Amino acid sequence: MLETVDLKARVSRSEYEKAMEPLDLELGQLQRDLRPSGNPIVIVLEGWDASGKGTVLNRLLQPLDPRGFTVVNVLASSKDQLRFPPMRRFWLETPSRGFITIYNRSWYRQVLEERIEDGLSRRRLEVVLERIRRFERMLDDDGTVVLKFFLHISKKEQAARFKALSKDPAYAWKVGKEERRRHKRYPEYLEAIEEMLAETSAPCAPWVVLAATDERHATLRAAEALSAAMKRAVERKPAAGDGILTVPVRKSSPLDRVDLAQSISDKEYDKALPKLQQEARRLQHLCYFERKPVVIVFEGWDAAGKGGAIRRLVYQLDPRGYDVVPVSAPQGEEKTHHYLWRFWRELPKTGHFAIFDRSWYGRVLVERVEKFASEPEWERAYREINEFEQELTDFGAVVIKFFLHLSREEQLERFNQREQEPHKRWKLTPEDWRNREKWDDYWVPVSDMLEKTSTLHAPWTIVEGNDKRFARIKVLRTVNDRIKAALK
Amino acid sequence: MLETVDLKARVSRSEYEKAMEPLDLELGQLQRDLRPSGNPIVIVLEGWDASGKGTVLNRLLQPLDPRGFTVVNVLASSKDQLRFPPMRRFWLETPSRGFITIYNRSWYRQVLEERIEDGLSRRRLEVVLERIRRFERMLDDDGTVVLKFFLHISKKEQAARFKALSKDPAYAWKVGKEERRRHKRYPEYLEAIEEMLAETSAPCAPWVVLAATDERHATLRAAEALSAAMKRAVERKPAAGDGILTVPVRKSSPLDRVDLAQSISDKEYDKALPKLQQEARRLQHLCYFERKPVVIVFEGWDAAGKGGAIRRLVYQLDPRGYDVVPVSAPQGEEKTHHYLWRFWRELPKTGHFAIFDRSWYGRVLVERVEKFASEPEWERAYREINEFEQELTDFGAVVIKFFLHLSREEQLERFNQREQEPHKRWKLTPEDWRNREKWDDYWVPVSDMLEKTSTLHAPWTIVEGNDKRFARIKVLRTVNDRIKAALK
Repeated sequence: MLETVDLKARVSRSEYEKAMEPLDLELGQLQRDLRPSGNPIVIVLEGWDASGKGTVLNRLLQPLDPRGFTVVNVLASSKDQLRFPPMRRFWLETPSRGFITIYNRSWYRQVLEERIEDGLSRRRLEVVLERIRRFERMLDDDGTVVLKFFLHISKKEQAARFKALSKDPAYAWKVGKEERRRHKRYPEYLEAIEEMLAETSAPCAPWVVLAATDERHATLRAAEALSAAMKRAVERKPAAGDGILTVPVRKSSPLDRVDLAQSISDKEYDKALPKLQQEARRLQHLCYFERKPVVIVFEGWDAAGKGGAIRRLVYQLDPRGYDVVPVSAPQGEEKTHHYLWRFWRELPKTGHFAIFDRSWYGRVLVERVEKFASEPEWERAYREINEFEQELTDFGAVVIKFFLHLSREEQLERFNQREQEPHKRWKLTPEDWRNREKWDDYWVPVSDMLEKTSTLHAPWTIVEGNDKRFARIKVLRTVNDRIKAALK
Repeated sequence: MLETVDLKARVSRSEYEKAMEPLDLELGQLQRDLRPSGNPIVIVLEGWDASGKGTVLNRLLQPLDPRGFTVVNVLASSKDQLRFPPMRRFWLETPSRGFITIYNRSWYRQVLEERIEDGLSRRRLEVVLERIRRFERMLDDDGTVVLKFFLHISKKEQAARFKALSKDPAYAWKVGKEERRRHKRYPEYLEAIEEMLAETSAPCAPWVVLAATDERHATLRAAEALSAAMKRAVERKPAAGDGILTVPVRKSSPLDRVDLAQSISDKEYDKALPKLQQEARRLQHLCYFERKPVVIVFEGWDAAGKGGAIRRLVYQLDPRGYDVVPVSAPQGEEKTHHYLWRFWRELPKTGHFAIFDRSWYGRVLVERVEKFASEPEWERAYREINEFEQELTDFGAVVIKFFLHLSREEQLERFNQREQEPHKRWKLTPEDWRNREKWDDYWVPVSDMLEKTSTLHAPWTIVEGNDKRFARIKVLRTVNDRIKAALK
């Protein structure tokens, strides 16, 4: 791929000025149109050391309003970053709707520096590449236009530039030991870059290789590509309406097979509960010691006992090691990002627990029922969620998911009780009564969710919730068992 | 202070159970009342290693809904954290209105571990203590209730606990080399703790020293203190109405003395601009090299040319090293925190530039005029802002503040122009016309701001904006001069 690049390509000053002037005007206008279009743009900037990334980027951005873009400098992962799944730091920096994020260096560090300097096995490399393709596809599916630049220069050219930079104290620091080491290993890097370009070029996230010997040439070609990408973003329909899928009528549900009559005696409960809680505490400390993160998800009908089950679960846990994350409708920044964005933010670091009271499954439950997500959006979400959870378990996390089930009659009973008991009345809102009316609307989405997202690495546990105490014991026991199985 | 603590204090099991039961109910109810009160609670948890912080905290939180609190574990500053002013990481974790944040270890690390292990000079210690007092006062002023626990045990008791912990592999890792080293230096730490307690006890942020030999005793006393603090938070009036201050009628304004007739010829402009921009780029690289952060603030009348000045300022800057932060009305999380919170988030790290297009000065401008902030709130803000900027400059940041001034006539001229030119029309909103009506309302707030927040370390530069080109040159020149003065 790279050998076909004409490194001698040049653009004369007059040609350059003639071409750039209308392009600048166009880019300025496109940026103003981008905001209302609601589609974000992600630009990846990769290239050899001293290939002129800063200069080209600076020129490229000059016609744009600096309030509409952010440049993210991607350094080697810090210690803190290593405590989370690798894509998290890139997810958190994705642009809001209508904005632009430029990643200066990017997730491709992992298949360049880290591959060459740390020696990545072929098998690991495949995993990393797949993770990257998945990430870029998810962004594209969500309406983001992804554009990737690689600035190419020859080894000889790089040597000449290092020499020039070293002369000015304001720039000499840019050529350090690492840069010189990478320069020596140019041929190895070249091979890795070739492969990277081939493996990760896709219509949804194309690579644009820029011959960068001549700065004007690289800049002009980059500006043209950017303009094309921005046009695509502006003209693109909001991610929603890409196609229409139909869901077959559901004949049966995993919930049909649930025996809601299960219960536990008071005596058994009082005996089992403290033991399980003590064990959970001990396991929590072992998880900390082994640096294992734990993600626990609670979904379920209103009044099914999520809150109570969570309270019993954390009762003896060390509060320094867990977070309970209540999830309601997205607000502010959460609304202007991919729906998974806020959950990437809330992930536990290694050794910690995060307990989600409702979760990303809102996408295929409330957002589906209330039509906040279009059909293609929530249909796609099953795969996205499975992939998301796969990234967590790939990283070593234990993912435990509960659906708390109860009968309609029992729910009504609990609503009435709440209304009557003054210290419980706050729990019941008119919203709850409205949701109860929608029980039937939720039946199919809940059933679909349980079937489509119960995976080997992140299975659902349906909890029989008519007897609250039975449910709490089952939750605790499941958490302990899953963690024990995951620990060494 | 600590020698008066009765380390032998004990609470019998029956006494404990009798006292805790009503306390638990009360704490649960207080937490439910806390949310609507809108007042947050900050709890600091400090204490000797193995003094039982985890256990006491766990018991304390059992009656609370885990969705309403967060525990923040404060470790030694990471490399990334060291690139920002020291209080930033604590600011970012402050609770939303009606929520509770528990800092397990806290900003007090700096006057304990860091003081003893790294040897902090007396002068530095004073600075750190003052910074802490200021932080806690700002939280209190904003309605936050601050409660600080210190768990005290004797050296002998600590030794016994270390021995016990070492026996169980689930807990043995808690007693490492550092813990043993600190144990040896117990007397030194004791002295530092004594001083810390004395220097940072204040009615707005009291220390509660808990004799922790007996776990029940520590827990019960902590629960009582927490209950009292929560009551205070629930009953506290929203921060707003603590007093009434009156502003004297303003006879003169710093703006009166501004010569708006100043201008520059096209020839001079075309000659000066590119030179200044090149110099800015060079200085930016030197700042990066010397790890100096730069904070630039733009305030000014609508259409005074802020956007254009920013564009010229960043024109040659390396986009990898600056961020332009557009500031509008707070949204989502920004609304549920102290008004400075979002600016702590946006601070530049060492070596980087952050350019604020409008800023924290909104507190004393639009929030004052539109009465979003009460009089005591915006009155207090002058001091708070000066202290905030002081923390930035203490950290080594260059803080540069511009107020772009223009005449009412020139503003009208520009509004009319914008209406006529199709590619500029987007800049003009009905809001702008409304604000123009309020010119007089803003005159006093702007004048107050310029006088009360122009400090030696962070002075205002008033920019004569009737001639846009003059203004742009003045901005660039000021930035360059201020940076040059700050560099070695």
